[in-house]
Amino acid sequence: MSDLKEIGVTISKDKDFSEWYTQVVTKAGLIDYSPVKGFIILKPYGYKIWENIKEILDKKLKSSDHENAFLPILIPESLLSREKAHFSGFTPEVFWVTRAGDNKLADNLAVRPTSETLAYSIFSKWIMSYRDLPLKLNFWNSALRAEIKSTKPFIRNSEFLWQEGHTVHETDKEAEDEVLLILQYYQDLIENYLAIPTIKGFKSEKEKFVGALYTTTLESIMPDGKALQMATSHNLGQNFSKPFEIRFLGKDSKQYFAWQTSWGASWRLIGALIMVHGDDKGLILPPNIAPIQIVIVPIFKNKDRNIVLDESQRLKRELGVGGLRVHLDDREEYTSGWKFNDWEVKGIPLRINLGLRDINEKKLELVRRDTKEKMFINKNQNFLESIKTILNDIQNSMLEKASRFHDRSIIRVYDYEEMRRKLKENSGFILTSWCGNIECELDVKNQTGADIRVIPFGPERSERDYCIKCKKSSKYNVIFAKAY
Amino acid sequence: MSDLKEIGVTISKDKDFSEWYTQVVTKAGLIDYSPVKGFIILKPYGYKIWENIKEILDKKLKSSDHENAFLPILIPESLLSREKAHFSGFTPEVFWVTRAGDNKLADNLAVRPTSETLAYSIFSKWIMSYRDLPLKLNFWNSALRAEIKSTKPFIRNSEFLWQEGHTVHETDKEAEDEVLLILQYYQDLIENYLAIPTIKGFKSEKEKFVGALYTTTLESIMPDGKALQMATSHNLGQNFSKPFEIRFLGKDSKQYFAWQTSWGASWRLIGALIMVHGDDKGLILPPNIAPIQIVIVPIFKNKDRNIVLDESQRLKRELGVGGLRVHLDDREEYTSGWKFNDWEVKGIPLRINLGLRDINEKKLELVRRDTKEKMFINKNQNFLESIKTILNDIQNSMLEKASRFHDRSIIRVYDYEEMRRKLKENSGFILTSWCGNIECELDVKNQTGADIRVIPFGPERSERDYCIKCKKSSKYNVIFAKAY
Repeated sequence: MSDLKEIGVTISKDKDFSEWYTQVVTKAGLIDYSPVKGFIILKPYGYKIWENIKEILDKKLKSSDHENAFLPILIPESLLSREKAHFSGFTPEVFWVTRAGDNKLADNLAVRPTSETLAYSIFSKWIMSYRDLPLKLNFWNSALRAEIKSTKPFIRNSEFLWQEGHTVHETDKEAEDEVLLILQYYQDLIENYLAIPTIKGFKSEKEKFVGALYTTTLESIMPDGKALQMATSHNLGQNFSKPFEIRFLGKDSKQYFAWQTSWGASWRLIGALIMVHGDDKGLILPPNIAPIQIVIVPIFKNKDRNIVLDESQRLKRELGVGGLRVHLDDREEYTSGWKFNDWEVKGIPLRINLGLRDINEKKLELVRRDTKEKMFINKNQNFLESIKTILNDIQNSMLEKASRFHDRSIIRVYDYEEMRRKLKENSGFILTSWCGNIECELDVKNQTGADIRVIPFGPERSERDYCIKCKKSSKYNVIFAKAY
Repeated sequence: MSDLKEIGVTISKDKDFSEWYTQVVTKAGLIDYSPVKGFIILKPYGYKIWENIKEILDKKLKSSDHENAFLPILIPESLLSREKAHFSGFTPEVFWVTRAGDNKLADNLAVRPTSETLAYSIFSKWIMSYRDLPLKLNFWNSALRAEIKSTKPFIRNSEFLWQEGHTVHETDKEAEDEVLLILQYYQDLIENYLAIPTIKGFKSEKEKFVGALYTTTLESIMPDGKALQMATSHNLGQNFSKPFEIRFLGKDSKQYFAWQTSWGASWRLIGALIMVHGDDKGLILPPNIAPIQIVIVPIFKNKDRNIVLDESQRLKRELGVGGLRVHLDDREEYTSGWKFNDWEVKGIPLRINLGLRDINEKKLELVRRDTKEKMFINKNQNFLESIKTILNDIQNSMLEKASRFHDRSIIRVYDYEEMRRKLKENSGFILTSWCGNIECELDVKNQTGADIRVIPFGPERSERDYCIKCKKSSKYNVIFAKAY
């Protein structure tokens, strides 16, 4: 039998955040490493979190008439290079297929870094008239971008699971609305299910998706003060419809180039979930996304075995029928102490320790994973409601806790030297003003390592603001931060 | 507006089966072709059929504690080559990644032709003791095998969607049971949802999965008399656990090599669906798998427009609440005639033509896609049950019709010359006897183009049977056929 140290996380989150993360992703049973550097395997527990994310987002997308489809993973080089800026943005990271069996290929094939070019060469055949619009497709697949230098499970891998959406519209306005609708879906998923607060806004020209008119983004702050880009939604304007000749006959019988969007969210969200909520014991999952919301651990001496196991089974059924995701850990080859540790590392929101005394007294002993609080409820006809209330409370207090950290980590700075100092301390998100000039953006990046993560939506800059770098009149309020 | 000829299938299924198939897959809106030869795109309607297949099978697998997970698509050559027979079986079809960006790779990476080797190199790390068994994983992904010569949408493509299952067990017996359980799942899916009869049995040594101990299969007869392998389930024995060192500590504290299975079903099932059920008008989908079970086409003159559309909406809601998959075609830029054709090509099992007179008379006009039969039912409180009964009847009669063809197409043959003649006429499945010798199998293949498709489970050969080829005493009853 493995001992407790081996299954438990052995380093404090505060002490070595990076090593703590590495231990949690593996010890919680989320991933393993592929023999090929930079690639990971998603174990069933990790995959189940991804399935839950998929299900939530898929339902939202289908509710607004988005349809799923499938595109091949190999894209001819000649197609990939048709939109020049786009191509040059991706080409250093592309995996190239150059042979099939023993035969050298005439046109090399890129392993999908993203599907814009392939999708749009096809769309140009499908779209003839306004009657074919809007076209709103989504693809659940994996994309590959070679990460040579540093890799980190879920955050930076050479292959990642994601969805990529691609839509085509008659008007600029429709495309704009689509971009924001999708961003809203992402925000709802991230805040109300993953319990992670975000800042919503635009990317700067330098940071936008290569080929897009503009990119909108959701950015979150990780506990080490670095930013994580959670999901992006791009307005492509006519930047792709022109080179790919996506034209339609309008209601007025004239030909127009279509307006397009693309958007994506990846398993990176699982990385955020781990970083934001985990503690020294391991993962902590919000109930709304947890594959297992409640684990029942039966506790008994030999003579009580059957009574306790029977009652555990009954309880499992009751909770399951009540719509909760529940697991009964009836393994007999492990001690209760070992099991407690195991489920703590895995971050199950609520544990029920079920023993003979509680059964006799018609009580349930509950242990919250987030606060470690132990509490008792009566096993009466309302017990299901009590448990749902507690799960709800866990969900809310996890978001509140994360929001307090989030709010605390956004610092309004007016002075460049102060900003440099703060960034050196990894103090999170620097809210400041910027003239809109790429030179200032690059200077800051070179001198501090921080990017403009997001130009938040919302109130315009005040008149008195000036660019943090050049002191000229500012155009935007921006968030500077170091990023993953 | 496109004219009817353009959307309709223009060739008879009997006259040119291959061209008919090609027209149906595209005109029904299932697929389009990628610019790379041999690769196809799944359009939303085709993908939705795949989603339904996935959902049915996924539920079965989860009901018996199989879990989904994710494996990277790139596999190092050094791993792929570890099981020699397996490697030599796949290597002529492998797409090779040799470069990442501008960098040549040291170890070439295969784009997943199947995941045995990668999965099992990982399993060997995960499995230490009997407590880690059984391990029952499933992967929904795509696999790539270069099809250089002839390709056919869904049937033979260089990339295909599928699931691959991989399980590890303590005993031979458990592995055997798993192989048959999965074959049973496939058969239930294929017969009761896709309405296609199958023959269940073993593959011959020559035809088994490379590296397996034995392969079980489901074979179906297509209308042109050729066999289609629908799904396979393999007992791998210890053939992989030995080279990949998947060992476990038994309850008796001794070390054992594990017993394994793998199994897969692909979007080829959609190809079978099209071939078996389609007619000269296009696709015909069995209700249990159809993305849309009922389409409502409102029929009105201008003055009745609002009444008819309102009633159509109401009917759509009622059918939807009743658990049916329903679509209302309220496009006003197309005529009813155009719509009838469009939905016929797409194979929707039941159409409701909703006009003012029927509304007033509280009747519904239904048109069955399979029999083209038109019928009226009363729109009373039982109408939902009536419709479900009709859908059920469509499902059953589609299976019956396919079964009649299936039964008719299996011919018992004792004489080799008769077999050659029958195979020349593409007369379907030749049921005969075989000595078990690969030379006879190869001779038949060379002389007739037919393989042993399946050694059916069931009654043993009778004593008097002799091998169709060498006339020596026979070991097996077998089905010879040409195959896709």
